[in-house]
Amino acid sequence: MSGHTTNLRLKLPIACVFLQFLTILLFTLFVQYDAETSAKLWHEELALRNKSHLQNEFYLRYPSFQDVHTMIFVGFGFLMTFLKRYSFGGVAFNFLIAAFAIQWSILIQGFFHSFHNGKIHIGIESMINADFCAGAVLISFGAVLGKTSPVQLLLMTVLEVTLFGINEYILLSCFGAKDAGGSMTIHTFGAYFGLMVSRILYRPQLKKSREREGSTYHSDLFAMIGTLFLWLFWPSFNSAVAAHGDDQLRTVMNTYFSLAASTLTTFALSALVNGGGKLDMVHVQNAALAGGVIVGTSGEMMLTPFGAMIAGVLAGSVSVLGFKFLTPFLASRLKIHDTCGVHNLHGMPGILGGLLGVLVAGLATEDVYGDGLADIFPLVASGKRTTTYQSLFQLSGLVVTLGLAMIGGSLVGVIMKLRILGSPNDSLCFEDNIYWEVPEDHHNGFQGVVVVRAQETDRDSSA
Amino acid sequence: MSGHTTNLRLKLPIACVFLQFLTILLFTLFVQYDAETSAKLWHEELALRNKSHLQNEFYLRYPSFQDVHTMIFVGFGFLMTFLKRYSFGGVAFNFLIAAFAIQWSILIQGFFHSFHNGKIHIGIESMINADFCAGAVLISFGAVLGKTSPVQLLLMTVLEVTLFGINEYILLSCFGAKDAGGSMTIHTFGAYFGLMVSRILYRPQLKKSREREGSTYHSDLFAMIGTLFLWLFWPSFNSAVAAHGDDQLRTVMNTYFSLAASTLTTFALSALVNGGGKLDMVHVQNAALAGGVIVGTSGEMMLTPFGAMIAGVLAGSVSVLGFKFLTPFLASRLKIHDTCGVHNLHGMPGILGGLLGVLVAGLATEDVYGDGLADIFPLVASGKRTTTYQSLFQLSGLVVTLGLAMIGGSLVGVIMKLRILGSPNDSLCFEDNIYWEVPEDHHNGFQGVVVVRAQETDRDSSA
Amino acid sequence: MSGHTTNLRLKLPIACVFLQFLTILLFTLFVQYDAETSAKLWHEELALRNKSHLQNEFYLRYPSFQDVHTMIFVGFGFLMTFLKRYSFGGVAFNFLIAAFAIQWSILIQGFFHSFHNGKIHIGIESMINADFCAGAVLISFGAVLGKTSPVQLLLMTVLEVTLFGINEYILLSCFGAKDAGGSMTIHTFGAYFGLMVSRILYRPQLKKSREREGSTYHSDLFAMIGTLFLWLFWPSFNSAVAAHGDDQLRTVMNTYFSLAASTLTTFALSALVNGGGKLDMVHVQNAALAGGVIVGTSGEMMLTPFGAMIAGVLAGSVSVLGFKFLTPFLASRLKIHDTCGVHNLHGMPGILGGLLGVLVAGLATEDVYGDGLADIFPLVASGKRTTTYQSLFQLSGLVVTLGLAMIGGSLVGVIMKLRILGSPNDSLCFEDNIYWEVPEDHHNGFQGVVVVRAQETDRDSSA
Repeated sequence: MSGHTTNLRLKLPIACVFLQFLTILLFTLFVQYDAETSAKLWHEELALRNKSHLQNEFYLRYPSFQDVHTMIFVGFGFLMTFLKRYSFGGVAFNFLIAAFAIQWSILIQGFFHSFHNGKIHIGIESMINADFCAGAVLISFGAVLGKTSPVQLLLMTVLEVTLFGINEYILLSCFGAKDAGGSMTIHTFGAYFGLMVSRILYRPQLKKSREREGSTYHSDLFAMIGTLFLWLFWPSFNSAVAAHGDDQLRTVMNTYFSLAASTLTTFALSALVNGGGKLDMVHVQNAALAGGVIVGTSGEMMLTPFGAMIAGVLAGSVSVLGFKFLTPFLASRLKIHDTCGVHNLHGMPGILGGLLGVLVAGLATEDVYGDGLADIFPLVASGKRTTTYQSLFQLSGLVVTLGLAMIGGSLVGVIMKLRILGSPNDSLCFEDNIYWEVPEDHHNGFQGVVVVRAQETDRDSSA
Repeated sequence: MSGHTTNLRLKLPIACVFLQFLTILLFTLFVQYDAETSAKLWHEELALRNKSHLQNEFYLRYPSFQDVHTMIFVGFGFLMTFLKRYSFGGVAFNFLIAAFAIQWSILIQGFFHSFHNGKIHIGIESMINADFCAGAVLISFGAVLGKTSPVQLLLMTVLEVTLFGINEYILLSCFGAKDAGGSMTIHTFGAYFGLMVSRILYRPQLKKSREREGSTYHSDLFAMIGTLFLWLFWPSFNSAVAAHGDDQLRTVMNTYFSLAASTLTTFALSALVNGGGKLDMVHVQNAALAGGVIVGTSGEMMLTPFGAMIAGVLAGSVSVLGFKFLTPFLASRLKIHDTCGVHNLHGMPGILGGLLGVLVAGLATEDVYGDGLADIFPLVASGKRTTTYQSLFQLSGLVVTLGLAMIGGSLVGVIMKLRILGSPNDSLCFEDNIYWEVPEDHHNGFQGVVVVRAQETDRDSSA
Repeated sequence: MSGHTTNLRLKLPIACVFLQFLTILLFTLFVQYDAETSAKLWHEELALRNKSHLQNEFYLRYPSFQDVHTMIFVGFGFLMTFLKRYSFGGVAFNFLIAAFAIQWSILIQGFFHSFHNGKIHIGIESMINADFCAGAVLISFGAVLGKTSPVQLLLMTVLEVTLFGINEYILLSCFGAKDAGGSMTIHTFGAYFGLMVSRILYRPQLKKSREREGSTYHSDLFAMIGTLFLWLFWPSFNSAVAAHGDDQLRTVMNTYFSLAASTLTTFALSALVNGGGKLDMVHVQNAALAGGVIVGTSGEMMLTPFGAMIAGVLAGSVSVLGFKFLTPFLASRLKIHDTCGVHNLHGMPGILGGLLGVLVAGLATEDVYGDGLADIFPLVASGKRTTTYQSLFQLSGLVVTLGLAMIGGSLVGVIMKLRILGSPNDSLCFEDNIYWEVPEDHHNGFQGVVVVRAQETDRDSSA
């Protein structure tokens, strides 16, 4: 019934083995430990520069790294389990994609940011940035969840990671834009890339799979595991690569308040816009997180706690309203089917986050930042740039991100249409059975729905 | 069927929006970054006081904060999912309440503890303390779980957080009592506050909802996610605001041993008191945690590892016996229905924890604590107070806490009885359907129970 | 139906209370806070040695400890929930065993490693090592999951922890072998010990319980919680007791890459070896983790990132192939029934990890390690030993581990056969009902399977 095209027996091994061996080859040629990771080099630092072990970045960044790592694998992974018959695919393809993306992005980001004397030097920040890049790919995955094969997804990962690296290089290195928590480079990029892929892969007959595109009571609870770990650790996400000291702490605090405010807003609007005056789990699972996205750029700046809260209210509002009104519109009019609603959680809040960065950067003054200005806006502090210019470069970064994401997503979508990549047919989307050995109750469960309906019909007719 | 009173369409948005905007207004007027969070001020510290970034409290407290944060949102949240038809409400109202409580308690605790020159100065410890305060509210939530509307819960949060701040101020600032892990301020306060609310909201006809007041096999597993994260991170909870160095480490270690001992004790007594010689998941989910509660006050003191274990045995015993014998008594005789059994996990172990603090403080000597005495009992070390006086102040703190919690809970309970707040009627408690859009299997599940019973009856009669 | 022998009413309380009181007695006699945990001693360190609080090991090790702690209780615990009718036992007996093992191993390891002047001095590293030792016991538990009573498991824990301590002492203290992440001391030891216990407890009639030895759709998702937390925090596991600075960071990085590579390999081989070209959740849940096991010895060495990846590919391959071909062989020919497949995840990758340590230690040069050589191979750096000798001692450590584990497991298995210990009979393995009060749906669920089959038969015959 599932047809030979979705059989993974050769396709997936070939894709995985090829990519893994290529990666190992490139690592062998180019990658080495940096001065904090190498036994020899770090002990030279200790001896020559009179450093202590405590100054190794490991102690300043590793707890944040682990929080981010948890978000990528548990947070995104379980958030994707909400579909009633695609929870295996949600959590496990998330795992597969992320495990490859972190390897590949070490190479791509390494070439752009830490390539010296023919070698990429990697340390703790490389691992954090690799996880960040995986996050962007997983956002795109959310848009096409249930409608793509793992081979398609691996191909998307190779290409998206590469384009992510280029975009990030333009923003951070060429434009000198700030985006520590990735409102632009991660969320906006990942969302619009994924939405364009979804547009290109549009399936007019997806309604054949519609009955599987819902949740069960317990799949919604599994998804809440993902939501809560994302929510909890988002302060670590936004601050993980921020400058030491006050910058990291301030980013954490701003994110904490923005998330809290977006959560209250989400509950308020969810009750308001749902017809029956009831709350919707989809909103709680997603819109409550928008507060983390919207301060991804400005979180390290002197946003102030109340500023962070206002941002959170805005993000939560836009996100719930997006789920209610925009997602159906995108699907029916623009032919963009967005399985997880990434446009509402990452797309719009990401753009707003970029714009908030434009605003807050434009308002920066030496009076407010003191000597700390050099950490956040080094080009402004050194007099090479006014805050207005900084602000314009931030805006340009947002525009470039949107452009690259949409063009890139379209091109990658075209490549992903190749028949050989094993995508499910329209009537078998959101169905684990085609890629996974599933336990018996999964079979029964699905038939069960039919059976129950038959019984209901019987009772109705007999009544 | 659920009646218009539980419809959240206007009530919840009004409550959330009002509280969020009031909070933003008060933050705008009063709250600012402290000297470790502000770009300008921290860089002044670096320059003037010759500090290094490593000395920013962020690096000493943030990992502990994240553990506490996980306990509040994932730990408490999933612990509350054990009810078969109220798992959405359990985890999501926990989320809502906590997201508001942390904002509100930043204000309340700020006014009491860090209000200088008309401004509240906040940093990493403010966030930890805000999460602590949310913990107390969530304990109270546990007592009324399934029997209250989210609007009632938000109202309770506003008032309880305020009273929590007053009580904490009396204990820590007026009495100079020690309570780093909150045996008194968090556990005792939260439990008896919640129990009194539950007493006031007593429903004589709650038996109409009795069939929903149980668990399913998988809801018990979801609850175990909460239990384990609470158990794991409790050492961080008790040590998060303890003094630097040995104090934090000792608190961690004492909590670790107390929890391990309460876990063995829980399994032992659970098998013993259950009629059939079988274990009960309710005990494992709750009583195993009592070891964390009981060392909340004394954990930072020189309790010794074996002292911590004895405390854990005591806590686990009291807790299991409470579930077996006291909870039914409270419900039938005192008209206190305690959904999660918070009296057993937080109430009695909290009181015992306060008393243990009285004892261990009374035994403190300079010989045992050395120069470390000043960190734990500064008033004793500076000669302003004897250990006997310290001990008496600890005891007074416990008495005041019990008094304020019980009076406060009663008054707040009366206010929460307002009909407009949308509480469920007696036959619809422990039911997500009245506040949530639920997936189809939730409907079926409940009818399913009825259907299965009907079938059983058929089979019985035909047999 | 379950017979009186599995009734826990007296057996379990007696075992728990005896062990807990014995532990408390031994702690009272022998255990005290070390110089970083004691108020007096640490303040002497501060004063006499001019230390700062930041140098307290707490700040360098506690985040790693908490990650390891999460792995032991949530990671192992939820990984064990995959069985459809034994999820309570999986997660909760894991909890019980680990809570006792950490207490007991503080004593055992303390006697071997930190016994001075008649006292065991314990600090943060003692807690990490205690959790490590619990890990070994939980690996053995995986081999006998569902076929043993909690009393048997506690007895196994007492004995295995003791033997673990002896083996570790021989390897680390006598042989000077390196094994920071425990490829040998934890994984190889725990796996072969458990496999021999399982061999001795072999049940020829276990097929009577076969229909329970599978998963459900959601029990597989619960197991994924365990898998992902193990996967995420494995870098912390391998690095938690490594030397400060570069050693910890390098171990983290090597583990990160090894795990990523074993994940891709697992997906590739899973699709390849399953008949229908579909993926198998058992492989994803287990084999993807083998990359963490295989670098347990060599992770702190200068393995290089590509070396770590090659190790990961090897570990993932061996593990998937083991599940497919070796596990059935062990069960049918060698009468070793391995419920969780610990031989594939911990056994073979553990041996390979030991051998990889032999290789990488043999290749160590001063040129590559610089002054860092003294951290990793102190005996080589001080000229007391050549790298070849170090390599041979590593190999000897592996051999001794295998020998002690297999002999010890056999002897302990014999003791565990005592009838009084309450093991389930052959037709009631993998069944929570005999040790737990279970919710009603658990009863129905099991009957349900029968009922559904009956219906299917009806439909078949009527068709």
